[in-house]
Amino acid sequence: MSRYWSNLIKNIEPYTPGEQPDDKKYIKLNTNENPYPPSPRVIEAVKRVANESLKLYPSTTCDELKSAIAWHYGIEKEQVFVGNGSDEVLAFSFMAFFNPGRHILFPDITYSFYPVYSSLFNIDYRLIPLDDDFSVTVEGFCRDNGGIVIANPNAPTGKYLPLESIEKILQCNSGSVVIIDEAYIDFGGESALKLVNEYPNLLIIQTVSKSRSLAGLRVGYAMGHKELILGLGRVKNSINSYTLDRIALAGAVEAFRDEACFRENCQKIIRTRENAVTRLKAMNFSVIDSKANFVFISHPSICAETLLQRLRERGILVRYFNKPRIDNYIRVSIGSDDEMDIALKAMEEIILLQ
Amino acid sequence: MSRYWSNLIKNIEPYTPGEQPDDKKYIKLNTNENPYPPSPRVIEAVKRVANESLKLYPSTTCDELKSAIAWHYGIEKEQVFVGNGSDEVLAFSFMAFFNPGRHILFPDITYSFYPVYSSLFNIDYRLIPLDDDFSVTVEGFCRDNGGIVIANPNAPTGKYLPLESIEKILQCNSGSVVIIDEAYIDFGGESALKLVNEYPNLLIIQTVSKSRSLAGLRVGYAMGHKELILGLGRVKNSINSYTLDRIALAGAVEAFRDEACFRENCQKIIRTRENAVTRLKAMNFSVIDSKANFVFISHPSICAETLLQRLRERGILVRYFNKPRIDNYIRVSIGSDDEMDIALKAMEEIILLQ
Repeated sequence: MSRYWSNLIKNIEPYTPGEQPDDKKYIKLNTNENPYPPSPRVIEAVKRVANESLKLYPSTTCDELKSAIAWHYGIEKEQVFVGNGSDEVLAFSFMAFFNPGRHILFPDITYSFYPVYSSLFNIDYRLIPLDDDFSVTVEGFCRDNGGIVIANPNAPTGKYLPLESIEKILQCNSGSVVIIDEAYIDFGGESALKLVNEYPNLLIIQTVSKSRSLAGLRVGYAMGHKELILGLGRVKNSINSYTLDRIALAGAVEAFRDEACFRENCQKIIRTRENAVTRLKAMNFSVIDSKANFVFISHPSICAETLLQRLRERGILVRYFNKPRIDNYIRVSIGSDDEMDIALKAMEEIILLQ
Repeated sequence: MSRYWSNLIKNIEPYTPGEQPDDKKYIKLNTNENPYPPSPRVIEAVKRVANESLKLYPSTTCDELKSAIAWHYGIEKEQVFVGNGSDEVLAFSFMAFFNPGRHILFPDITYSFYPVYSSLFNIDYRLIPLDDDFSVTVEGFCRDNGGIVIANPNAPTGKYLPLESIEKILQCNSGSVVIIDEAYIDFGGESALKLVNEYPNLLIIQTVSKSRSLAGLRVGYAMGHKELILGLGRVKNSINSYTLDRIALAGAVEAFRDEACFRENCQKIIRTRENAVTRLKAMNFSVIDSKANFVFISHPSICAETLLQRLRERGILVRYFNKPRIDNYIRVSIGSDDEMDIALKAMEEIILLQ
């Protein structure tokens, strides 16, 4: 620790992302990347803007991308905010809508960046326990709060909360902003977007990283009432006028225009997930019901950390979280059919060798 | 204002960037962009990584880019931090090294993002007046403080503070972090980098936006003692694990490898600036001595706002800041020789028509 560090960073525990090793070729089922390539239209657009215009700043308003997103979802451009990945959009949302001195609520098991943002921006929080089958409970979120964050489907469980429950939570929280983090919504869930014109306190956050195969491009977005969007703009314009480079902007626009590619890749992943779930259950794994591009699994005869290690020795990366209630689970991203076949066969062998 | 906004954003006044109009073709001398294209090697690198690998997250450590920067400057990779433009790096630095309750110091006339960051992170500040010829004074910065930020060359004046003065400021501030924002250092100033191994409280921030013609790529960087760099990493990893996309990373690496292109473009801009200064002085402009890629000018017979407006009517954009002491100046970015010739002729005509 340095004498020059602020008290803030002396006391914070940063988020740890899944590893991105480059020492050798792994089957990467650890960071929920999409196994299929992005739309060829994205690649073409990126190449097209790789020219002299890079000497100029990007758009500060990102209007073209906002319009493409608004068009895709059938909302107004003024209901869309874009940022450098959904993590940045989440961080900005904590600054824009939550206040120190008013505790916010999120589930005890969820995306581990939420407590980090809370610490960073000095926002107190209460953990609302998921029930025994890892479901978010409506009652838990109908109590005094200064804001709510719910990942739906939840991470790292993959468990989906039906829209009726989201709506009930919105109804009993008209005084605070309810953020629904829908990073994984395209793999079988129904977006809360249809509620966005009814509830001015609803903010939906999504990303092109997962369902649009663009984790490497760093584009996330929020959708909500235009007043919320203006609030996010105030944070962005107090930190960095241009959070998205010219190339990411151009590429992301095409990702929203190629509907067919997006739908097809999502369907493939859903099919692969369902096949994987069947095989995992046959191997006696306990599998949390998932509407995401990953499954969260536990096995009665091998502990999760050992399984993680054995898979790694075979060149297969998965993710493990050493946290209460989930420390005997591993999270396995849904890869291609071939990747999943290799991973599942490896698990069979590892369990047999126990 | 929305009832859902946090107190923070209700009370903040965000930064206003120079406009990026797309209604028609302007001669853009308003945002200090470089008139020359980036290295062809950058363009090639961007095209090379425009492929299926965009489905994967970028490097969290950005080691290749850090190594390229370290190699270019002859320092260690561990002395380099990279971020989404120097604005983001500055914002992270405010969080990493300054504390609420301890006022920081910066000049009364300087980059207008500094007071915005201060408000956003609740850091009190004192404005240290530049002297009558707009120079930073060493004495002003040798007083009690919790941190210092100096742009060198300063913005929007272009005025350069010699390295001896920077060193004196470092010597009388061993207890706090001194940030030297060198966004414009490559246009004739000498970087404080040579002091970096002597002063563990020195943080230098630079960007590829200006001297490397890559405003559209969004890459900034900080150089300093490895403990400071670790501190910046803690902030970044508490906000966004991946602030630089795969394409920006690949492009920026090549920008540091093509030394010849970089040097040549800087030299061209310096020559154009010196020619422009001669002509401006002949037109009776008062011209602040500039070591940046812009000049800050004032004319006795036309007020700055009128000049700005008349230039705009002729398709030439420059920048004006309605602030004490500088509200009769305009800032003119150094364009190509042809652009400057058109702008200077327009100014001659506008003044004649007064």
